[in-house]
Amino acid sequence: MRSATSALIVASGALQHAVERAPRSDLVIAADAGLEVLLAADRPVDLVVGDLDSVSAEALSAATAAGAEITRHPSDKDESDLELALSAAIDSGVQRIHAVLRDGGRLDHQLANLLVLASTRWRSAEIDAAVGEHRVWVVHGERTIPLVAGEPLALHAVGGTATGVTTTNLKYPLVDADLPGLVALGISNEAVAASPTVRIETGVVIAISSS
Amino acid sequence: MRSATSALIVASGALQHAVERAPRSDLVIAADAGLEVLLAADRPVDLVVGDLDSVSAEALSAATAAGAEITRHPSDKDESDLELALSAAIDSGVQRIHAVLRDGGRLDHQLANLLVLASTRWRSAEIDAAVGEHRVWVVHGERTIPLVAGEPLALHAVGGTATGVTTTNLKYPLVDADLPGLVALGISNEAVAASPTVRIETGVVIAISSS
Repeated sequence: MRSATSALIVASGALQHAVERAPRSDLVIAADAGLEVLLAADRPVDLVVGDLDSVSAEALSAATAAGAEITRHPSDKDESDLELALSAAIDSGVQRIHAVLRDGGRLDHQLANLLVLASTRWRSAEIDAAVGEHRVWVVHGERTIPLVAGEPLALHAVGGTATGVTTTNLKYPLVDADLPGLVALGISNEAVAASPTVRIETGVVIAISSS
Repeated sequence: MRSATSALIVASGALQHAVERAPRSDLVIAADAGLEVLLAADRPVDLVVGDLDSVSAEALSAATAAGAEITRHPSDKDESDLELALSAAIDSGVQRIHAVLRDGGRLDHQLANLLVLASTRWRSAEIDAAVGEHRVWVVHGERTIPLVAGEPLALHAVGGTATGVTTTNLKYPLVDADLPGLVALGISNEAVAASPTVRIETGVVIAISSS
């Protein structure tokens, strides 16, 4: 895989218009049937990963003919297609990853996707995602969230308590606070000025803007 | 609040048929506009909690006339309506709680609901939930899951790694294993015989059957 600074990952069931408005990226990875959405959006694909049980032979042929690399994994794998795609992006050294994922569908997959995005395995890159119409940012350390005043922003500590949480430009500010993992405390916040920031000392926070 | 052994909690956006098929419970709690669904399902309500901004005055009057207690909380509260309802159920000493929650809608609320259900604050009770058409069980310690062979079952450690995880009757068994928090490892499991069990030493696991 050639070296790259930014990656776009598109998974099965992603919205075509979310793929069309995704930022330009110099590495485009299809997670399994995400390939179909990328082809429909007329977006060149560099790599296809997954067990490839849910993607058509025609789509795979078209991608191969257009120069995409195909990496087929066994069905009984431990990683999800999203994990395989994130791992491939990280291996190519990218600093930014934008994932386009489906909303709805299986609740276990929905939860797994959010937890997987937050894994410290990918913390060398800045990760955000479009999940259907919802926007998601993963915060390790510090992050500026591209919102305008009035937009909602929920903060969830996943994988345990986040400590030393400090925010700017949010209605309910946090200053060197602990954000426990299994509470709803973070849900009703919102930006009161553009570009709020979230900084944490330990742990990981998923920021969600869902209106 | 009178003492009770089982509670039914119904939240805003719950499916009426999921409320109609919910188990009999001796304490019925409406979380905010969950009241509308309970009234539509013709189910007597004991308690209504929440900021009550999204429930109609008519519904509140009907509930009061039928003997329900109403506990109105300020809008700027730290707890979600689900947390208030769970807290009320626990305060009345119940040993079993069944929650009926909405699927879809705001992604931050969806994630918060799953994390909140898993909180150790309620571990004195056995908790399960219907989230739209998905079934969810919270596992602290040991739990038997009412599935038949062939039904999917995903296991997610929320709030950090679960240790000493041992299962029975699942396709991919775990024996005294660690289940990390931010991975998709648990998603593709399924029951290979009726009534699989999940036992954990430390941590908490959300089990989801979502087909």
